[in-house]
Amino acid sequence: MPELRKDYVTDTWVVFSTVRSKRPEEFRAPGKKTPAEKCPFCYGHEHMTPPEILAYRKEGPRNGSGWWIRCVPNKYPALEVEGEVHHRVRQLFHSVNGVGAHEVIVETPDHDATMSELSDFQVQEIITAYKQRYLDLTKDKRFKYILIFKNHGEKAGASQTHPHSQLIATPIVPRRIMEEVTAAIRHYEATGGSCIWCDIVETEQEEEKRVVSENEMFIALSPYAARFPFETWILPKAHETAFEDITDQERTPFARILKDALGRLNRILDDPPFNYYIHTSPTDRKDSRYHWHLEITPRLTETAGFERGTGFYINPVMPEDAAQILRGDAGPKTKPA
Amino acid sequence: MPELRKDYVTDTWVVFSTVRSKRPEEFRAPGKKTPAEKCPFCYGHEHMTPPEILAYRKEGPRNGSGWWIRCVPNKYPALEVEGEVHHRVRQLFHSVNGVGAHEVIVETPDHDATMSELSDFQVQEIITAYKQRYLDLTKDKRFKYILIFKNHGEKAGASQTHPHSQLIATPIVPRRIMEEVTAAIRHYEATGGSCIWCDIVETEQEEEKRVVSENEMFIALSPYAARFPFETWILPKAHETAFEDITDQERTPFARILKDALGRLNRILDDPPFNYYIHTSPTDRKDSRYHWHLEITPRLTETAGFERGTGFYINPVMPEDAAQILRGDAGPKTKPA
Repeated sequence: MPELRKDYVTDTWVVFSTVRSKRPEEFRAPGKKTPAEKCPFCYGHEHMTPPEILAYRKEGPRNGSGWWIRCVPNKYPALEVEGEVHHRVRQLFHSVNGVGAHEVIVETPDHDATMSELSDFQVQEIITAYKQRYLDLTKDKRFKYILIFKNHGEKAGASQTHPHSQLIATPIVPRRIMEEVTAAIRHYEATGGSCIWCDIVETEQEEEKRVVSENEMFIALSPYAARFPFETWILPKAHETAFEDITDQERTPFARILKDALGRLNRILDDPPFNYYIHTSPTDRKDSRYHWHLEITPRLTETAGFERGTGFYINPVMPEDAAQILRGDAGPKTKPA
Repeated sequence: MPELRKDYVTDTWVVFSTVRSKRPEEFRAPGKKTPAEKCPFCYGHEHMTPPEILAYRKEGPRNGSGWWIRCVPNKYPALEVEGEVHHRVRQLFHSVNGVGAHEVIVETPDHDATMSELSDFQVQEIITAYKQRYLDLTKDKRFKYILIFKNHGEKAGASQTHPHSQLIATPIVPRRIMEEVTAAIRHYEATGGSCIWCDIVETEQEEEKRVVSENEMFIALSPYAARFPFETWILPKAHETAFEDITDQERTPFARILKDALGRLNRILDDPPFNYYIHTSPTDRKDSRYHWHLEITPRLTETAGFERGTGFYINPVMPEDAAQILRGDAGPKTKPA
């Protein structure tokens, strides 16, 4: 069973997961790429993964081919799905046993596809699968948070090249989410009832210069304090607490703006390694002041001792410049006449 | 002038430093190593750096050869030393102009040296130089924090192979330090007057299994919630608030345990890339409950979307196992008879 441990001093949590444990000398070996012949996410290789949790296919048996989206448990899970959650606190040592879920969402049968080049239909189906897994797992009261994320490219931590996303459900609410929730409550109280993300959308629409693209329901922007070059956020313009409440009406514009943002990064940075993740409300849904969003962070720079020692980031690209380059124009976005 | 910006929502600060700015296509190019002939930190190349701030040499002119430690301003500083600090807050936008210091401490004239193989004298001189730069810069009231750190190896962010450390002085106290200060105060109050780091030293000495090595004044250990495989902390056993108060008596045992810890990592992991940094009190010295320490974090794993999205870390190596391997023995450290 994996173990979660809290730092002696700060609220930093570490998942100790020795399933993928290595001997010291193995840390020296560079990662290997998986060719399609050996890829566990390609048609005909369904037996290479644990049995599927969910698949979209017209016909044919479970765990056979013919699917267009397939969700399976991670073969090397960071957290394990069986058991109860126990907190242990003794002197300076605080731990939680590693109960959780770790799943893989295979986004397409095409080993070499790129998300921005998939059809609108296919990206909508990915979003539907995300939603379905969220809704299923939020029923499990052991899970306090569910994060869906995507690692693209070896430098971004992807151990498989076949397009896939991952889901991890955790027995505690992560620090970054708690910080967002706390700040949102503070902002709400300080402003007499405003959502901080609604205010971000409104202010950035007025300022224009950090807006990358927009459609009827979503906005993509280079955040004011982007931690990474070409970091891009996608937010629903209306106040929506939880991603998993996304409606059929919102699914198409969300798929389109996600494809659009990834396509811009892909063209300008030549298929960069990146991570994206969805920040949604904790599963308890206690606080409707949360406003879900998706953050895309390309992996173009390395963090080093300064960042590790301080928690600061160093970014060599101003977000206004990144937005302008991503828009592909010569100046700030002009409003439609 | 660089600019510091705070995230709209959380206390995450980003340094926007476009001195090293790149065009989008340059992010694609892999880093290049500097050979000794072109190394700005080798003898005879002193003109390639800005004029020196500090050097230890017996004789000879400033900015000539013959030194054994040399400290210079960083040629591509993340923060700039001239000007006053101004905070600007407008709507959701909080920024500080990028006033600070960014220096390089060249640790030896030997281009290919490894710190753990330097003489005790040389490592003591490095420590003396650290102390001297801290003491000089703490006089400048614009600087709220000074971080000394080392990046070793390209994967750890070192752009020069010649052994060197860096110093960055910042106009705000970094988030990680603030978290430590806040937690230390909380612990002090909850325990009726204990230092949390003194308690860590005492508890880990009792538990034994995470201790890597010890001498009369310092302890090296694998922390209970190590974020990274083989992460190692060095702490003074006595309660010492600030690194820059290190005494002549402490300098030798500190040099020895630092060399020892780096030597163990070097042997077992075959010269791994790593960062280390010194956590010391903020420059105002307001709180004597701080207890300085040095953290060494090897770079053996990649963080990915899960870590970025949550603030959790995943570590495949239990700290008890790391300590045992670093000790080079078969079981927990036994007490001297």
